[in-house]
Amino acid sequence: MKLLYLLPGNVEIGLGLDEMERRRGILQKYAAAGTEVLIDYVRSGPASIESEYEELIASVETIQRIVEAEKQGIDGVIIGCYGDPGLDGAREMVKIPVIGPGAASAYMAAMLSHRFSIVTITESIVPALENLILKNGLDRKLASVRATNVSVLDIHRDPDAARRRALEEAALARDQDRADCIVLGCMSLAFTEANFAMAETLGIPVVNPAIASLKMLEAVAASGLSHSKKAFQTPPKFLNH
Amino acid sequence: MKLLYLLPGNVEIGLGLDEMERRRGILQKYAAAGTEVLIDYVRSGPASIESEYEELIASVETIQRIVEAEKQGIDGVIIGCYGDPGLDGAREMVKIPVIGPGAASAYMAAMLSHRFSIVTITESIVPALENLILKNGLDRKLASVRATNVSVLDIHRDPDAARRRALEEAALARDQDRADCIVLGCMSLAFTEANFAMAETLGIPVVNPAIASLKMLEAVAASGLSHSKKAFQTPPKFLNH
Amino acid sequence: MKLLYLLPGNVEIGLGLDEMERRRGILQKYAAAGTEVLIDYVRSGPASIESEYEELIASVETIQRIVEAEKQGIDGVIIGCYGDPGLDGAREMVKIPVIGPGAASAYMAAMLSHRFSIVTITESIVPALENLILKNGLDRKLASVRATNVSVLDIHRDPDAARRRALEEAALARDQDRADCIVLGCMSLAFTEANFAMAETLGIPVVNPAIASLKMLEAVAASGLSHSKKAFQTPPKFLNH
Amino acid sequence: MKLLYLLPGNVEIGLGLDEMERRRGILQKYAAAGTEVLIDYVRSGPASIESEYEELIASVETIQRIVEAEKQGIDGVIIGCYGDPGLDGAREMVKIPVIGPGAASAYMAAMLSHRFSIVTITESIVPALENLILKNGLDRKLASVRATNVSVLDIHRDPDAARRRALEEAALARDQDRADCIVLGCMSLAFTEANFAMAETLGIPVVNPAIASLKMLEAVAASGLSHSKKAFQTPPKFLNH
Amino acid sequence: MKLLYLLPGNVEIGLGLDEMERRRGILQKYAAAGTEVLIDYVRSGPASIESEYEELIASVETIQRIVEAEKQGIDGVIIGCYGDPGLDGAREMVKIPVIGPGAASAYMAAMLSHRFSIVTITESIVPALENLILKNGLDRKLASVRATNVSVLDIHRDPDAARRRALEEAALARDQDRADCIVLGCMSLAFTEANFAMAETLGIPVVNPAIASLKMLEAVAASGLSHSKKAFQTPPKFLNH
Amino acid sequence: MKLLYLLPGNVEIGLGLDEMERRRGILQKYAAAGTEVLIDYVRSGPASIESEYEELIASVETIQRIVEAEKQGIDGVIIGCYGDPGLDGAREMVKIPVIGPGAASAYMAAMLSHRFSIVTITESIVPALENLILKNGLDRKLASVRATNVSVLDIHRDPDAARRRALEEAALARDQDRADCIVLGCMSLAFTEANFAMAETLGIPVVNPAIASLKMLEAVAASGLSHSKKAFQTPPKFLNH
Repeated sequence: MKLLYLLPGNVEIGLGLDEMERRRGILQKYAAAGTEVLIDYVRSGPASIESEYEELIASVETIQRIVEAEKQGIDGVIIGCYGDPGLDGAREMVKIPVIGPGAASAYMAAMLSHRFSIVTITESIVPALENLILKNGLDRKLASVRATNVSVLDIHRDPDAARRRALEEAALARDQDRADCIVLGCMSLAFTEANFAMAETLGIPVVNPAIASLKMLEAVAASGLSHSKKAFQTPPKFLNH
Repeated sequence: MKLLYLLPGNVEIGLGLDEMERRRGILQKYAAAGTEVLIDYVRSGPASIESEYEELIASVETIQRIVEAEKQGIDGVIIGCYGDPGLDGAREMVKIPVIGPGAASAYMAAMLSHRFSIVTITESIVPALENLILKNGLDRKLASVRATNVSVLDIHRDPDAARRRALEEAALARDQDRADCIVLGCMSLAFTEANFAMAETLGIPVVNPAIASLKMLEAVAASGLSHSKKAFQTPPKFLNH
Repeated sequence: MKLLYLLPGNVEIGLGLDEMERRRGILQKYAAAGTEVLIDYVRSGPASIESEYEELIASVETIQRIVEAEKQGIDGVIIGCYGDPGLDGAREMVKIPVIGPGAASAYMAAMLSHRFSIVTITESIVPALENLILKNGLDRKLASVRATNVSVLDIHRDPDAARRRALEEAALARDQDRADCIVLGCMSLAFTEANFAMAETLGIPVVNPAIASLKMLEAVAASGLSHSKKAFQTPPKFLNH
Repeated sequence: MKLLYLLPGNVEIGLGLDEMERRRGILQKYAAAGTEVLIDYVRSGPASIESEYEELIASVETIQRIVEAEKQGIDGVIIGCYGDPGLDGAREMVKIPVIGPGAASAYMAAMLSHRFSIVTITESIVPALENLILKNGLDRKLASVRATNVSVLDIHRDPDAARRRALEEAALARDQDRADCIVLGCMSLAFTEANFAMAETLGIPVVNPAIASLKMLEAVAASGLSHSKKAFQTPPKFLNH
Repeated sequence: MKLLYLLPGNVEIGLGLDEMERRRGILQKYAAAGTEVLIDYVRSGPASIESEYEELIASVETIQRIVEAEKQGIDGVIIGCYGDPGLDGAREMVKIPVIGPGAASAYMAAMLSHRFSIVTITESIVPALENLILKNGLDRKLASVRATNVSVLDIHRDPDAARRRALEEAALARDQDRADCIVLGCMSLAFTEANFAMAETLGIPVVNPAIASLKMLEAVAASGLSHSKKAFQTPPKFLNH
Repeated sequence: MKLLYLLPGNVEIGLGLDEMERRRGILQKYAAAGTEVLIDYVRSGPASIESEYEELIASVETIQRIVEAEKQGIDGVIIGCYGDPGLDGAREMVKIPVIGPGAASAYMAAMLSHRFSIVTITESIVPALENLILKNGLDRKLASVRATNVSVLDIHRDPDAARRRALEEAALARDQDRADCIVLGCMSLAFTEANFAMAETLGIPVVNPAIASLKMLEAVAASGLSHSKKAFQTPPKFLNH
């Protein structure tokens, strides 16, 4: 099975190509035998995504790249941004499974917990993430969304500080918001693999959205499933294309 | 007060410039004394919007045009598509009020009814509209979303047929889904001004989203209000721009 | 357009006729060109309303006055008490639009925010206001209802102290309850026009229910709408009257 | 224990004094040993209650009579109208338990079922009853509210026809709305004691709100309980009375 | 009327037979004239129940004993554990009313309050109790579930300490979680009759689930009602037994 | 990785050992490379499970077998009954992941759809399945639960008829309840592998809970996760065991 992990940002001006390749390596490490992980990025995307506007900048080319990927025989796609930019639109345009890390990690957390919290980056994205959980029907399982106020690019400059702040907010989510499971709400945080040490320290599961979306996509594909084309209908004017 | 009604589609390949000017005239007719209605469209947008993908195609330039409009002294903007494409992203980028017809007409309907239904165009947009209502917190007030399965461009080819189908679905919403108020869920339907005859026939209010968004924007502006910049924060990297 | 702002309390033993006239002036100041604001009060009402019982005392004569107003050619009515006493009953008895400031300001706030709080007067009215928001379908958008514990009549004795307390509770709503928009939950507070300075200080929108209900009524009327007579049916035994 | 069943309508122009006495007899028949049932009515109330407006007409004197009843040593009061007019206001003004048949029968039904329906009289009261269930927190347990469109006074003219229509709607609630329990949503229907034959025919429980409110009041009183005076606070200006 | 209060634990290794007899005495004291309270226990049950696993250990024999009780002419059964172990299964197997203290006390509290909290024993049972409230449709009325972290057997060793801790948590529920009514969430706590002193101290109602379930069962039985056999169907293979 | 699929019924008097071995083979066929699927059953369980009572009969030994499995080095367990009997109790007693097909398939369906329906066996289990979805926080994503009224043992006698009835109900769910995804709500149905032909015919995804629970368990285990021990606490008296 060939999976594409598609970063909806312009890696050249943002994370850098080495970081992209490092992320591919991590995903390949967790992939099942027989899964080949490809990685790519969206040239017109922003350097980082910390708002709805930046999600929108990325989303059209993201979808077009997913349409191409389907034509090229890719078996499934992960949109490599926690806010799932362009997910519904992409599902309208293709039949292969497209997974968003925000939804995939939320379902994983819900399945393992009574109530979970998301620890994300800047305050600016909190309402959008609450809306994402709401749209996925999991609002009653959500204890809180907390922000570290460490930006995406600061995570790369000082990953240790980012991990420390994430741990602090996760502890508050557990102790004040009564969360019994944490989701890392940012892919840059996810690719620090901070979740393992956090889970050890906190004594509760910490879901890594990079790994969760990979394993959920494998689960969907191995089950012979994809998203519903009745829910995500191809727009009428694209039906004959 | 100067308001911009911004169509997120490419009017040149879609509705045509005459239709756009006709719409401006209708809005100006309902505007309060002192309100000047300007109208414009998004060149990179699609011919019509009947899916989430098409909403996304339109949204980035829509937002950029709204940013410009604010710089040019426009007092408020209506995004001229029922699905409110780019609304949250636009609110992140400007301080002037930006109104979406989907949200504005839903709040208007909720204020006047016990339970309302939306009559929209194609099935392909129904889940997106249910999600829009959910995000705006009004899911408990929504009786149903019904589709006429008359496309945007067919409304222009045969507006009478479109009105007949809308009336049929609205009657079913009233009688089977127990709606006591109807919202026209498409701007092309709205600008047929079908709502007045429908309300007469059905005996229940029919909310026109074009008029509702105009009057809601005037109400917001006259109250000295705009959207919350704590809810719709300017993305950190745009703060110094 | 002629609007009646009807105070459901006995102004003679409460606020005084001068205060009533001052309120009319404020409303007229915010009214659209062509809107004439009339004001009146309910003789059998209480001196102030801080409970459900006092709402009920006011409500029957309130409705009867609205029935008369419709016969006299008034185009729309605002019930001048934040708790919307008698709103549904009045809507049953007339066809002209009747607006309650509680509902109107809540829909205004919901349209501009991710989550809003209400800052009201005494604790005694908090459950009733939570129920009002629930009935209007906006409970998921409500962050909290907070009470200043400054009574209606104390607002008139010392409006500065009332404004200070309102600001304190609004700041707590923003910082502890995560509200990004505030509604003033009392008409006496509203007519201090405290909202403008509060919004300046807090950096988030503050909705004034007096202005919001005026503008919402104008918006409804200018749209050719009124409440649904299927939702608010005239009681059978009044149908022939 | 002395209980007052207080009819919020003017029995003299409505049901008649004989019918009132007959109802007292039915309640006394179901009362526990040691319970004495008193009955009375509200002179300023309407002949029957089929709307929110008519509920309001009745509610102020209803509350004042309950205040008197408390002073006279009555141990608890049932407001004898299914829509619970004045319930919250009465609870503000007294410490003795005050029970509404709408709430009491809904909690009884919820305790015995997976999902229940209400069979009431005219369409005009349906939204108000849905709001009553919502306020009591039971909306998720409610399958539907159905109206027989037989008015209160028609029940007295032809109780057999009223019972037949109630049975028809209850069967539809069971078969189409998936209700597994029915509540009679009108006190005049309740005092036909139609519930027993209906339950026999339908094979599901049918809750009689007259009996349910009597037994719930006895249960509350025997438990040494009453409503919360923190939830239903005495209005500040009545605290020294 | 003969009621059985059935303890789903092994009293011989847990509370002791004297304590069981003492509990019967308390129930008989609150019973209506004509009610005879029998008490018994489940031999295969655990010494105490502080988890879902322990609820399951108790539940099968609990149900079998209720089936026998029905055959022996018992008129109704209370399952003597706050978590209502085996309640739905028991209702499937018998026609006589079976009441769980968790559900009965929650409906009692909801009927008397705006919002209630449960004060229970160990943290280990909190998610299960939140799920119990959810299943009964009352999640919107629930302010919080708080644990004293005093175990069932410690309540018996030092009931005064248990009562003190319960009072502390109840005060926090009132002051921090905005509860206006408390439910004791443990039968061992209930049978200390701590509720009366707590209510006195806190100024809000405190519902005792032992008394509430007794009075609710009497109310159900006296109304000629039982649970719905459409909601709680006898399993097909037991239909001929 | 070694997984145990544990049937909570007595296979010897129910499905038969051959059928059990056949099921193991199907699971092994869908398992990832490196996954070894073991299968076993609960001797004290019933022949089939079509009610809450039968779930309870099975649950205690189910949990005890899972405790043993953990001691024997099994890496994860699937409880082989759609209603997830004993799931929460088992999670309290072990640290290895325990997955229920009901929850796992519901999260899979929610991730791929806008709204899904469950097609199950007898009416007797419908309320329990609605409660299962509610507990997992997915009630807003659930369109309906429909029953074929073909019992578990009849599926084995005539699997073709069972498949036909499932297809009929699934088509009704799609067309009348607006489901865009179906979950097979019974393991015996699941092991007919009816889902593939149904999906083909219906044009919407059909989730097989046997495959879904296998792939979800693999996903959880490969992510280094298990259920939260803060949500599913080991009962205090078992902590030292």
